[in-house]
Amino acid sequence: MKRIAIFPGSFDPFTIGHHNIVQRAVYLFDELVIGIGFNAKKQDFYPVDKRIEWISYLFEDQPKIRVEKFEGLTVDFAKSQGAGFILRGIRTSADFEYERAIAQVNKAMSGVESVFLLTTPEHTPVNSTIVRDIIRHKGDAGLFIPEKIREKVKEYRR
Amino acid sequence: MKRIAIFPGSFDPFTIGHHNIVQRAVYLFDELVIGIGFNAKKQDFYPVDKRIEWISYLFEDQPKIRVEKFEGLTVDFAKSQGAGFILRGIRTSADFEYERAIAQVNKAMSGVESVFLLTTPEHTPVNSTIVRDIIRHKGDAGLFIPEKIREKVKEYRR
Amino acid sequence: MKRIAIFPGSFDPFTIGHHNIVQRAVYLFDELVIGIGFNAKKQDFYPVDKRIEWISYLFEDQPKIRVEKFEGLTVDFAKSQGAGFILRGIRTSADFEYERAIAQVNKAMSGVESVFLLTTPEHTPVNSTIVRDIIRHKGDAGLFIPEKIREKVKEYRR
Amino acid sequence: MKRIAIFPGSFDPFTIGHHNIVQRAVYLFDELVIGIGFNAKKQDFYPVDKRIEWISYLFEDQPKIRVEKFEGLTVDFAKSQGAGFILRGIRTSADFEYERAIAQVNKAMSGVESVFLLTTPEHTPVNSTIVRDIIRHKGDAGLFIPEKIREKVKEYRR
Amino acid sequence: MKRIAIFPGSFDPFTIGHHNIVQRAVYLFDELVIGIGFNAKKQDFYPVDKRIEWISYLFEDQPKIRVEKFEGLTVDFAKSQGAGFILRGIRTSADFEYERAIAQVNKAMSGVESVFLLTTPEHTPVNSTIVRDIIRHKGDAGLFIPEKIREKVKEYRR
Amino acid sequence: MKRIAIFPGSFDPFTIGHHNIVQRAVYLFDELVIGIGFNAKKQDFYPVDKRIEWISYLFEDQPKIRVEKFEGLTVDFAKSQGAGFILRGIRTSADFEYERAIAQVNKAMSGVESVFLLTTPEHTPVNSTIVRDIIRHKGDAGLFIPEKIREKVKEYRR
Repeated sequence: MKRIAIFPGSFDPFTIGHHNIVQRAVYLFDELVIGIGFNAKKQDFYPVDKRIEWISYLFEDQPKIRVEKFEGLTVDFAKSQGAGFILRGIRTSADFEYERAIAQVNKAMSGVESVFLLTTPEHTPVNSTIVRDIIRHKGDAGLFIPEKIREKVKEYRR
Repeated sequence: MKRIAIFPGSFDPFTIGHHNIVQRAVYLFDELVIGIGFNAKKQDFYPVDKRIEWISYLFEDQPKIRVEKFEGLTVDFAKSQGAGFILRGIRTSADFEYERAIAQVNKAMSGVESVFLLTTPEHTPVNSTIVRDIIRHKGDAGLFIPEKIREKVKEYRR
Repeated sequence: MKRIAIFPGSFDPFTIGHHNIVQRAVYLFDELVIGIGFNAKKQDFYPVDKRIEWISYLFEDQPKIRVEKFEGLTVDFAKSQGAGFILRGIRTSADFEYERAIAQVNKAMSGVESVFLLTTPEHTPVNSTIVRDIIRHKGDAGLFIPEKIREKVKEYRR
Repeated sequence: MKRIAIFPGSFDPFTIGHHNIVQRAVYLFDELVIGIGFNAKKQDFYPVDKRIEWISYLFEDQPKIRVEKFEGLTVDFAKSQGAGFILRGIRTSADFEYERAIAQVNKAMSGVESVFLLTTPEHTPVNSTIVRDIIRHKGDAGLFIPEKIREKVKEYRR
Repeated sequence: MKRIAIFPGSFDPFTIGHHNIVQRAVYLFDELVIGIGFNAKKQDFYPVDKRIEWISYLFEDQPKIRVEKFEGLTVDFAKSQGAGFILRGIRTSADFEYERAIAQVNKAMSGVESVFLLTTPEHTPVNSTIVRDIIRHKGDAGLFIPEKIREKVKEYRR
Repeated sequence: MKRIAIFPGSFDPFTIGHHNIVQRAVYLFDELVIGIGFNAKKQDFYPVDKRIEWISYLFEDQPKIRVEKFEGLTVDFAKSQGAGFILRGIRTSADFEYERAIAQVNKAMSGVESVFLLTTPEHTPVNSTIVRDIIRHKGDAGLFIPEKIREKVKEYRR
């Protein structure tokens, strides 16, 4: 049986921390679907289609990785992809408490198993909220965006 | 002197975790007032009067338990009920830090003592935010609502 | 039915933090048994009989409070006292994780309920380990010992 | 070289906890700039100019302390003041995780070093969110505002 | 390439929590080696050979699982088994901080990746230290030992 | 008045994490005394005089830094050095809780202020316990020892 995992998130934007998790997790699964959760009623920072484009380009050479968007419950998205696993990165113990609750509820509702990697030390402080905050204030967040898509993200006029 | 406690919260909705705390705490107090805090300016998920109805029905056989709604400070509600104790359930260490600050401020302002029970392990991941999220996305949250009021909550058209 | 609680610990020595918890908890229970857990094979800092003497003297005017020593499991001690509750103080979120595990195991094994008060802010940093460390290095730990027993503890030649 | 630090925050309002941090930190630096971060698009509780007035009055006798407002990134404000240090108070381990991420990103982006003091125990539960909540509900938050500016804050009609 | 993982621990004794992690992880790997770390100079609770016997018996029907003992560094054991992954269960945020440090050091030294599952809620409070403590005090820890090996563990005269 | 700080620890051995903290803190103080706490009754990993030698050599070019050993309470050592500050590095939120208690007790006993820097991300997982464990098991811990003293530490026959 194929080991299929989803890696859900808003990835608004996709950071070097997310990149690092995907690159390490790719050895663990036969197929990895990066799922961009969105909510048609909420205002995003970058449009979901731009995010799909950038992330797809980032992993264009890795046939095991696909990028999809989804609305609704994460466990429903997992089922729609035939995935038995949800991949998550944990950065801090504050993340941990939140992730544990979500993972246990997901398991109770659907049987889908959550699998965790811990961010490598140098990526621990990076998260999308901080990155958005820097960009919003005209700071240079290039340091926190994967090199291959850095220019594309910078050039995009929000 | 009678030992009276309030159990404040928004209970939007009341979960199996809340139910479990109340059932265990009832041995500790002579009277237990479940206080539904609300804010006339904020949009709730379920109307406060529905919540009162459901929770009252859930505990209809327990004469020591009453359900009330309140606006304003928790310590003022406690005083209005003649309560010397505030009952709280703690699920995680993230909860803990928040609860400690609130409890210490309440104590400093009014002398009312906060008493804590810890959720039983199987209820730890359940919280109203997750439950609302499931319902909002048309998932089945029945598992997390006390059995006696499950149908009433499900039937309610929001 | 009488509400009886045990307050277990090693109390080696009994600090102003313990004192504060007991004084606040006394309103919650009809009877409160301070249980000094000891282990005949382990070396204590102060002899268990001295600790009983000091704590008993501290609460000599409070008829609801008794002091006992016990060896073995806390839940067995609770049962031997007819206690339905175990009282514990929590200082920090590190305490919290430990206490939660113990409380859940105690509940699963015996049905005895653990009830928690949080230390008041000014007592949060005080714990017996730090106090012993100060005394061991000839520092003055008087600040952290309840006033009524301060001299007795100081005079004792270890 | 002069040791200049900024102490950034929204200080909406300035609490006894902030006061305590500044009073202790003043020995550590040659110059301390209290920086009130604001966002022209966001609704504040108290107007930023009132906050400047109150905090300036509070420290009128301390020549090493100045009060400024700023918009934008904290590291840009630090540079504009010639500051090599960012001063922060940490209250709880939840604060800690958040502060660590911000400090590490600030360091990576600008080389500015963050220096931390821990709040004294009796100020640990106080934070501006709780204080605003009390005032909003017509409670008396005087206990949590530095004595010298207490009346000024109370008299202000929001 | 085969996905081989080690699951290192002292398993003194193997609890229902460990059992649960292994049963869920078995879908993730092609081979899973339960590695019992021991130290010839330290006194164990149960002899390492007994632990091997019990755990082997517990998983006798699962061909993907093997049980080994090892002395020395976990990463060296991983290499000796040709394993690219270290499996760990995390119960609490206190566990998390510890596990993160170890995982990051292991990764830096050897490239071996640590993969985490979170314990299911009902197993969260169980750990070997608590179980040993119960047994040491003649309590009944049967509840926390996998059913299939419960009698074997109980009968063993330590 | 000169700003003098002590940086207390056992430094058994001194890691790249300690090194990083000292190098960043040196800008904050006029004098920095690295204080190696030891206990004549306890068995160390490396002899205290070797540790003094290595750390002194590491900072031989920095006139603001001295290395001393001390027995007894940290606050007494601070006073003996005329220091008004205790410098500490915090790595994780578990560290934080522990450091907070110690800092608050030190402040209450002596008025000496504790000042904290947070470890940079890449040094977060490193601590002396892990390093000793690696060396004890014949692993290569060179990665975690400052380059300038790496060979000296390796050559020492314990």
